[in-house]
Amino acid sequence: MDFATIGGLIIGIGAVIVSFLMEGGHMGAILHAPAMIVVIGGTIGASFITTSIKTILRIPSYLRLALFGSTGDPLAIISMIVKMSEKARMEGILGLENDMKYVRDPFFRKAIQLVIDGTEVTVLRSILETEIAYVEERHKKGIALFQKLGGFSPTLGIIGTVMGLIHTLGNVTEPDKMATAIAGAFIATLWGVALANLVYLPLSDKLRLRHEEELANLDLIMEGVISIQSGDNPRIVTTKLMSFVSPELRKETV
Amino acid sequence: MDFATIGGLIIGIGAVIVSFLMEGGHMGAILHAPAMIVVIGGTIGASFITTSIKTILRIPSYLRLALFGSTGDPLAIISMIVKMSEKARMEGILGLENDMKYVRDPFFRKAIQLVIDGTEVTVLRSILETEIAYVEERHKKGIALFQKLGGFSPTLGIIGTVMGLIHTLGNVTEPDKMATAIAGAFIATLWGVALANLVYLPLSDKLRLRHEEELANLDLIMEGVISIQSGDNPRIVTTKLMSFVSPELRKETV
Amino acid sequence: MDFATIGGLIIGIGAVIVSFLMEGGHMGAILHAPAMIVVIGGTIGASFITTSIKTILRIPSYLRLALFGSTGDPLAIISMIVKMSEKARMEGILGLENDMKYVRDPFFRKAIQLVIDGTEVTVLRSILETEIAYVEERHKKGIALFQKLGGFSPTLGIIGTVMGLIHTLGNVTEPDKMATAIAGAFIATLWGVALANLVYLPLSDKLRLRHEEELANLDLIMEGVISIQSGDNPRIVTTKLMSFVSPELRKETV
Amino acid sequence: MDFATIGGLIIGIGAVIVSFLMEGGHMGAILHAPAMIVVIGGTIGASFITTSIKTILRIPSYLRLALFGSTGDPLAIISMIVKMSEKARMEGILGLENDMKYVRDPFFRKAIQLVIDGTEVTVLRSILETEIAYVEERHKKGIALFQKLGGFSPTLGIIGTVMGLIHTLGNVTEPDKMATAIAGAFIATLWGVALANLVYLPLSDKLRLRHEEELANLDLIMEGVISIQSGDNPRIVTTKLMSFVSPELRKETV
Amino acid sequence: MDFATIGGLIIGIGAVIVSFLMEGGHMGAILHAPAMIVVIGGTIGASFITTSIKTILRIPSYLRLALFGSTGDPLAIISMIVKMSEKARMEGILGLENDMKYVRDPFFRKAIQLVIDGTEVTVLRSILETEIAYVEERHKKGIALFQKLGGFSPTLGIIGTVMGLIHTLGNVTEPDKMATAIAGAFIATLWGVALANLVYLPLSDKLRLRHEEELANLDLIMEGVISIQSGDNPRIVTTKLMSFVSPELRKETV
Repeated sequence: MDFATIGGLIIGIGAVIVSFLMEGGHMGAILHAPAMIVVIGGTIGASFITTSIKTILRIPSYLRLALFGSTGDPLAIISMIVKMSEKARMEGILGLENDMKYVRDPFFRKAIQLVIDGTEVTVLRSILETEIAYVEERHKKGIALFQKLGGFSPTLGIIGTVMGLIHTLGNVTEPDKMATAIAGAFIATLWGVALANLVYLPLSDKLRLRHEEELANLDLIMEGVISIQSGDNPRIVTTKLMSFVSPELRKETV
Repeated sequence: MDFATIGGLIIGIGAVIVSFLMEGGHMGAILHAPAMIVVIGGTIGASFITTSIKTILRIPSYLRLALFGSTGDPLAIISMIVKMSEKARMEGILGLENDMKYVRDPFFRKAIQLVIDGTEVTVLRSILETEIAYVEERHKKGIALFQKLGGFSPTLGIIGTVMGLIHTLGNVTEPDKMATAIAGAFIATLWGVALANLVYLPLSDKLRLRHEEELANLDLIMEGVISIQSGDNPRIVTTKLMSFVSPELRKETV
Repeated sequence: MDFATIGGLIIGIGAVIVSFLMEGGHMGAILHAPAMIVVIGGTIGASFITTSIKTILRIPSYLRLALFGSTGDPLAIISMIVKMSEKARMEGILGLENDMKYVRDPFFRKAIQLVIDGTEVTVLRSILETEIAYVEERHKKGIALFQKLGGFSPTLGIIGTVMGLIHTLGNVTEPDKMATAIAGAFIATLWGVALANLVYLPLSDKLRLRHEEELANLDLIMEGVISIQSGDNPRIVTTKLMSFVSPELRKETV
Repeated sequence: MDFATIGGLIIGIGAVIVSFLMEGGHMGAILHAPAMIVVIGGTIGASFITTSIKTILRIPSYLRLALFGSTGDPLAIISMIVKMSEKARMEGILGLENDMKYVRDPFFRKAIQLVIDGTEVTVLRSILETEIAYVEERHKKGIALFQKLGGFSPTLGIIGTVMGLIHTLGNVTEPDKMATAIAGAFIATLWGVALANLVYLPLSDKLRLRHEEELANLDLIMEGVISIQSGDNPRIVTTKLMSFVSPELRKETV
Repeated sequence: MDFATIGGLIIGIGAVIVSFLMEGGHMGAILHAPAMIVVIGGTIGASFITTSIKTILRIPSYLRLALFGSTGDPLAIISMIVKMSEKARMEGILGLENDMKYVRDPFFRKAIQLVIDGTEVTVLRSILETEIAYVEERHKKGIALFQKLGGFSPTLGIIGTVMGLIHTLGNVTEPDKMATAIAGAFIATLWGVALANLVYLPLSDKLRLRHEEELANLDLIMEGVISIQSGDNPRIVTTKLMSFVSPELRKETV
């Protein structure tokens, strides 16, 4: 659970709603279907063209990553690797087979499996680095997708508003109703700008942050597993991996 | 057929039209010739200056690339190269002459032809790399052209609207008709922003995606053909080429 | 106390208020709660998503840095290091233990402590460089946070204004009151643009300036402490450290 | 004659005029002297400050380059160089003196003259490279100047319009005439945006394109002349220079 | 005297004023104190925060540099250096002491003084390079300051206008006067956009141009003075320094 994301969404959207209600507005005025269709539909359409079906199907997993932030705790990863390195020195590398069931991260599992299979060090490193490169590319496509959503959303809001103005201004015969008609046209702008600035763009930034954390963890796992395979002394493994961690985190372990 | 592109165009433009009809508008109000002329004509004029006649003539082929996405499947390319490498080891390189007719990609054909002609490896690589560099340049000009179209389109919409305001406001004598006149002026903005955000800019992004895929394929073909010429063992050819492919795709072949 | 920051805030915000009062406005018209809630709340919400809880908790210390600018005077740092290097040559490195109480900068303290503990030069340098890298990252997150606040603030002002227009225009029955209603809606834009341009963005720039000064000081301390440990002649230490300082500052010491 | 430039200008400006006339406007309404003075004069003033007198005096030659595109045909250059290299091998380098009169490009003339004067290869290359570097700088200043013109033009349009609004709104006593007054104020925006997007910015892009073509030609000439001086075999000269040319162009020579 | 700067300011500001007067406006309408206070005061306030007191105090010298452009003529510098190198070879380096009084540029004076003092070549070069690096930094801060002024100015114009709209719209009881009130509010936008585009941003560009010229001159002086110290033959000094100068300038000396 990522409290900064959830909290930020609540504070941001909440502030907009509270302000609107304080002014005496009622939510029904904003939940206007045509405005929502043009903004959300148009944004999705434009963003779909810029990307591939594969990236689109990954949207739920991007959202999960941004909202629940399942990137592992580096200290827990280190302690698990150190325990494994002790076991590997005592029982041999095959003894790690039992520990596989505690490892949930698929990259970690794959790395351990390769070690158990007796993969040579240079091959092991090259396989893991390629894997990391593809994870990186996948992340970057997600970050770019939300950036695109955030870029197209306000312009589609403008399209909706201009379309509303063309339609309503052209048909208003009673001047009294013109203000109401103009007000209605602006709902699309509201949706376009609000979705971009309270949802899409912040989520894109959050995904970038997550991306950096996860890459750091993958590097940590790769170095750790290579250390295990090399039969390094567990104390050396700890020192080596701790240098990947910020000084603040290191203090917590003392 | 690229479903993300076609689907994206349908969803995006569809959302705009549905929303407009839901509000009670009718399409005739938007299909206003002067607005379309200033936006489309002006955008094309400005973009033509920024580029050369040659790039303009390639627009249909860029559109085909974005809409139908003919970039080959890397796994199919690999399997064809592996088969050729087997044949070349059994029947000699001249045996490939018969296979030429199954190869549709012109770059692939040219590469095979060079091998059959007995071109030396370094010369072969240098010719293919130059070829790839020119493909790259051609792609980049297309990406840039659609980017330019997307950049000029909204400003020409503004020009159309301002021009409409100058003309209509200056001649309206009955205040009742002013709203209708203003509404009409905004049609140009609508066309300018909609074309840019639902068509030009997304297509530019799609061309960039295609460009990256095609470059990867050309690299794959170049390495494969050089392997064939070197008489590499088909199993080694497979391993070598598979490292160019993402892990997900690799799994599909198992 | 950073007079450019404090003075700039007073001049900037003062100019806005003075101008408003000169026109005959009264402050009450601007201190409109719903406008402030949507702009400040929404901006904070969006910015919170883009960052982590840890960076948010550091906001007060970022503000303190920008407003009071506690970065040390490089000449004072140099003179302290030179005195320490003299003492270390006369009384041995352990003699520095007494001087620890005069050192307020935590990085400086840590560096001296490491020297007293007899840390080897290469290890010392590597520890201090890692420490500096983390300080750098922390600073950059602060600079980016204020940049984000400044980016989201005007768009949230627009959201507030559009929301106000939708609500008020839709309910105005007496045309006489429409102007007042529109005026009210613009208060959100005012807050959004003013906070971004008079507070958030300038503070982000100031933090970047501070960041550069502090990094230069940390480098100075690192080189100085390494010189102390190497037992360099105090005169050489002075020459070495002075080359880190701008010519103008150097003249002041003559 | 560069048909893409001339054609683009005609299509772009033509589309704007046709659209305006279709709506029933007459050109006189747009040819409003104060609007043109503030936009064109202001843009030129601002751009003059950003550059030097020397660059300003080169504007006509930049325009000629963009409109008539005198960059030579690379194939013609190659064929001329090959002929010269044959002559030089038969009659000696001094035999080139007669060919000088057919060479119109000043850079080409200078290069040949240096060869006839017996300049050493390394000196020759260094002189020509310096010359190319200065040509590059001169081009870049022109590209930047038109970019600046395109950047200042719309904001000066806004200045003109705001100025018009201040003046006309402040003096309108009959509400009937307000619409006409507002319409008049927008003419400056029209000029500002139209000049930027239909003239300045496209011409800046065209100059960049020309710049790349001309640099490629200068490189071609430099390599060719050095080959002549080295007494290379004409067939080798052809192969070498042909590798500078795109595959499409090469086919035309077959 | 930099005629491009002075001329550009006169043309730009003149065009705006002429256009305004042609429309029948009178300057008094624009010289509205509250609008000027919010734009100029607010811009200065915001820019002060982004920089340090030191950079602010240098504003007059930046303006002098942009307006009067005192960067020396490279040919004059070369001829002076060549004369000095002749003298140094005839009378020895101490003979330069008399020439010091003709050298006005402080960097040049410092360099000559160092040579007379018998500074070693590597030390001399390192001192002069550090000096140039600090000059570069000082210039960049000035360029950035005017860029910031130009960035904040239009947004402060918007703040002024929104503030004016809030105040005036909220208090207008007679619809007849609303147009005048709105017109008044736009004066702040006019000042903000005009100052940015006719003064701040062009001056920032001009400072960048000056910066490049001055850096080139400092490099020239450094190389020249090092040549003098090395006792190079005056003819070699000329050739060496001439290669720093554009071909066009070189011709003037023939």
